[in-house]
Amino acid sequence: MRILVTGAEGFIGRALLCRLLTDMDGTDVTGLDLAVAPPWASGDRLRWIRGGLDDRAVLEQLGAAPFDLVFHLASIPGGRAEAEPALGRRVNLDASLDLLQLLAQSRHRPRVVYASSIAVYGALSQAPVSAQTEARPAITYGAHKRMVEIALADHTRRGDLSGIALRLPGIVARPRPVSGFGSAFMSELLHALSAGESYVCPVSPDATAWWLSAKAAVDNLVLAGKLDVCGTLQPPALRLSIAEVVASSVQLFGTARSAGVSFAPDARIEAVFGRYPELDASAELALGFAHDASVADMISNAVGARIWRDKKANSPQ
Amino acid sequence: MRILVTGAEGFIGRALLCRLLTDMDGTDVTGLDLAVAPPWASGDRLRWIRGGLDDRAVLEQLGAAPFDLVFHLASIPGGRAEAEPALGRRVNLDASLDLLQLLAQSRHRPRVVYASSIAVYGALSQAPVSAQTEARPAITYGAHKRMVEIALADHTRRGDLSGIALRLPGIVARPRPVSGFGSAFMSELLHALSAGESYVCPVSPDATAWWLSAKAAVDNLVLAGKLDVCGTLQPPALRLSIAEVVASSVQLFGTARSAGVSFAPDARIEAVFGRYPELDASAELALGFAHDASVADMISNAVGARIWRDKKANSPQ
Repeated sequence: MRILVTGAEGFIGRALLCRLLTDMDGTDVTGLDLAVAPPWASGDRLRWIRGGLDDRAVLEQLGAAPFDLVFHLASIPGGRAEAEPALGRRVNLDASLDLLQLLAQSRHRPRVVYASSIAVYGALSQAPVSAQTEARPAITYGAHKRMVEIALADHTRRGDLSGIALRLPGIVARPRPVSGFGSAFMSELLHALSAGESYVCPVSPDATAWWLSAKAAVDNLVLAGKLDVCGTLQPPALRLSIAEVVASSVQLFGTARSAGVSFAPDARIEAVFGRYPELDASAELALGFAHDASVADMISNAVGARIWRDKKANSPQ
Repeated sequence: MRILVTGAEGFIGRALLCRLLTDMDGTDVTGLDLAVAPPWASGDRLRWIRGGLDDRAVLEQLGAAPFDLVFHLASIPGGRAEAEPALGRRVNLDASLDLLQLLAQSRHRPRVVYASSIAVYGALSQAPVSAQTEARPAITYGAHKRMVEIALADHTRRGDLSGIALRLPGIVARPRPVSGFGSAFMSELLHALSAGESYVCPVSPDATAWWLSAKAAVDNLVLAGKLDVCGTLQPPALRLSIAEVVASSVQLFGTARSAGVSFAPDARIEAVFGRYPELDASAELALGFAHDASVADMISNAVGARIWRDKKANSPQ
C-alpha cells in the first residue's frame, strides 16, 4: 500500500508518520512538507518530498506515483489565514482542491482522509454539536475547510475518490511556541501544568472546550483510513472545563505544579474558544472513533514522556 | 454608479443589462462575456469586455475600474460542469473566487449580487425548502455554487464585500435550443405550448417544479443590488405542476395549442426535477422579493411578445 501524508512535518503529521511507519507493515509512505525531512526519516519505506501543494512541480511528482491512501493535513493555521486571506486561499483551499483533482484523475479511487476542523461550525450555540450541525464558518480558515469538505464529498459522489473528512478540534499539546491558533491556550496550559510554570490563562476556570490529544487524533485518522465509510464526521473529544483539566493535573503532577495557574479571562477568547457545548459523536463512536480514555489519559498523551519520567522520579515507592 | 454584469450575454444577463440601461439613470454599466457585444450595446453607458474571468488580462482590466455594484452571473451550466468537472471548477469556482478576491481588494466594499442556484440543496425531501435548508449539493455545479456562497459570506464577514447570494431556480423560458440544464424541459414545454407544437414532456403531469420567469428573476436581482441585506437568500417562485402550467396555457393560447403535449416520464428526470416541495420564502417576500404574479403572468413573462401578438391576431373583438 502506498500512503501520502501532506503536512508531514507538522504537529499531527509527524505523529501520524511515526505511527504509520511503526504499525503498518508493507506500506510505502511519502511525506510531503515545506520542511526538510526529519533526521529519522531515512528508512527505505519513507520517501520525502519537500515543497508545497501550490507548486506545480510537486503536484507533478505526486501525479507520477499512484497512492492508495492519502492523509491531507497540510494547511496554514487559522490566525495566519485570517491575517493573510489570499495566502489562506492558496494553501488551504486552492492547493487542497488541486490535490483532490490530481488524485481523482488517478482513476483507481484512492482513499482520502481530510483533516477538517471544528472551525467550520462558526459560532456555537449551547445545543449539542454533531456532524449534522449546520456549518456557518466565522473565520476564513473555517470557510476554506468547509469548501474543501464539499469538494471532497463531490469527488466521492462522482466515484473518483473515497473521501472522509474529520472535523478535528484543537489538538493538544502543540509544541511551544504555540502560535497562530486561537486555541493555543489549551496547549500552553498543559505545558505550564506539566512543567510547573506560572501561566495566565486567558479563559475562566469554567470555560469548556473539546480536548483531544495528538495520540488520539492519530488513532482516529488511522481508523478513518481503514474504514469503508465516506462523508464528513465529527470525531469524539472530551468536553472539559479548564477547572477539570487543572484538577486532574493536580493528581498527576501534584498540587505545586498547578499553583502557578492564574486567570485573566479575555472576553473575546472566552466567547469563541471557551463555550463549547456537548459533542454528540455517537455515530462516530459506534464506528470506533474514540477520545482519550480519561482526563488523565488526555493530559498524559498530550504532554507525553515528561509525566512518566517525573512521576517515576517523585514516586514514594 | 458603476455596475459590472458578468455573463452579460447569457439568458439572464441580457435581460438584466437591458433593465439596468433602461431603468437606472446615472449608471455606467460594464458587460463581461465570452461573446461579442450585442449590436444594441453601443451606447455611451455600456462598456463591453469580451473574455472570461479565468483570463488574467480580463481580471486586470476589471481591477483598473472600481465597481460599486456587481452582478456575477457567469457560469457554465450544470450538465456541462458534470461532464467536465475541471472546466466547471475553473469557470464556476476558481474564476468566481478570483473575481471576489479582486473586488475585495478594491477596499471600498462593493455590493456583490451572486446568482447562486437551487442546485446547492441536492436531493429534496418533501419538507418545505428555505434558505435555511441544509445544502447537500448532489451535482458538481451545485457544489461549486455552494462553495462560492461560502466564500462570498466570508468576504462579507471580513467587511471587504457586501454580498448577497440568490438561489435561483431554473429560469423560464431559456431560448432554444435549451441545453446543458436538467430543467430544460420547463422552457421547452413553454415554447411548445406557445407555438402550438407537439412536445413529449419527460415528466408526468403531476410533477411539481419552481417556476420563475426571466423578468421576475431580473426584478429580484435588481432588488438584491439595492437592499442593505447580506447573506444567502431563497427568492420566491411559483410551485406548479406541469398540469397547472398546461391548464393555464390553455386559457392563454386556446385548447388547440396544448393538444400537442404528451407525456413520457423519465424516472431520473422526474426524481430530480419533478418533485419540488413547497418553497418557504417568507423572509424574502417580506424584503420585497417576488415571484410572477400568477401562472398566466409567469407564462406570458416567459414567452413574452409572442403571446400578445397571437392573442391580438386571434381576438374575436
